[in-house]
Amino acid sequence: MEPVARWEPDSRGRLGRAALELFAERGFDDTTVEEIAAHAGVSERTFFRHFADKREVLFAGSGNLQTLLVDAVIAAPRTASPMEAVAAALESTGPFFEERRDFARQRQAVITANAELRERELIKMATLASTLADALRQRGVKEPAASLTAEAGIAVFRVAFERWITDSQRRGLSRVIRESLAALRAVTAEA
Amino acid sequence: MEPVARWEPDSRGRLGRAALELFAERGFDDTTVEEIAAHAGVSERTFFRHFADKREVLFAGSGNLQTLLVDAVIAAPRTASPMEAVAAALESTGPFFEERRDFARQRQAVITANAELRERELIKMATLASTLADALRQRGVKEPAASLTAEAGIAVFRVAFERWITDSQRRGLSRVIRESLAALRAVTAEA
Repeated sequence: MEPVARWEPDSRGRLGRAALELFAERGFDDTTVEEIAAHAGVSERTFFRHFADKREVLFAGSGNLQTLLVDAVIAAPRTASPMEAVAAALESTGPFFEERRDFARQRQAVITANAELRERELIKMATLASTLADALRQRGVKEPAASLTAEAGIAVFRVAFERWITDSQRRGLSRVIRESLAALRAVTAEA
Repeated sequence: MEPVARWEPDSRGRLGRAALELFAERGFDDTTVEEIAAHAGVSERTFFRHFADKREVLFAGSGNLQTLLVDAVIAAPRTASPMEAVAAALESTGPFFEERRDFARQRQAVITANAELRERELIKMATLASTLADALRQRGVKEPAASLTAEAGIAVFRVAFERWITDSQRRGLSRVIRESLAALRAVTAEA
């Protein structure tokens, strides 16, 4: 039987919440891993079992998001147009983020407040776009359609995500994504 | 009359070309300001009269590009739709880049080869998109149309620029931008 001290239910989740609380309170730069671990009631060693560094707490979900998007593009029906495949992929992230709405909102505030994190977030989004373009090319979509669809899709996602997080009516993310895509179609048609 | 040694015709242009040659040859990280100045036949002091550091040689044009785009969005006819205003702005950069085609191509290769420079370029593009969105809001365009138009416009620009630079038929940038925008319209309509 494990000693009680080693029994740490959901220490990863607790570390995430503790980190966001401290980042919001003191700023990202002025928060140490030691403080995050103490706030979560775990050891630093436990922190490093879950995350490489404090920035990783904010970006550890990127890999899951990327897998979710690529799998959905690949799984879209053969008859789906490139933008339909991307739209389905973006909308499929709804449940993933709805479960983490508070985390996502706090995370966004921390990132907006810090130039280095904003840059990291831009790189993450650019990587997502280029991975989506790869997935579309695997479906046989040619250039420049693949890159344009992927880039436009990520632009829709970013705008929709920002709206979803600040939406006082708490509409679902999938719905806000659909509305943003319709708005993109409207502005693009007028040129 | 100035002494001959001080007569440095187009030292800024020579420094730019010298820097790109060395970046291409040795890599960005392994090139020093001292080497760039020597290669251009000017003093380091002259280098620093024109550029804050070696990275600046690659990004000094960003401000001009931003001014060009924003002025064109503001100058677009009142009756122009948001995307028409952005399209006109993007196409207006044609002559600016046609004059610098070789520089632009070499610059792109240097940036593609270096992770730090790629990040800096992403930040530049994100800044351009948010400046374009500001200019659209000044024209009375609401959200999310302003952000979506600006983001989609910059996506079109990036894809078109990449195609223009590698285009064996040497079609003009303005034309490639128009074609890319038409391609975006086509993929967006199919969803």
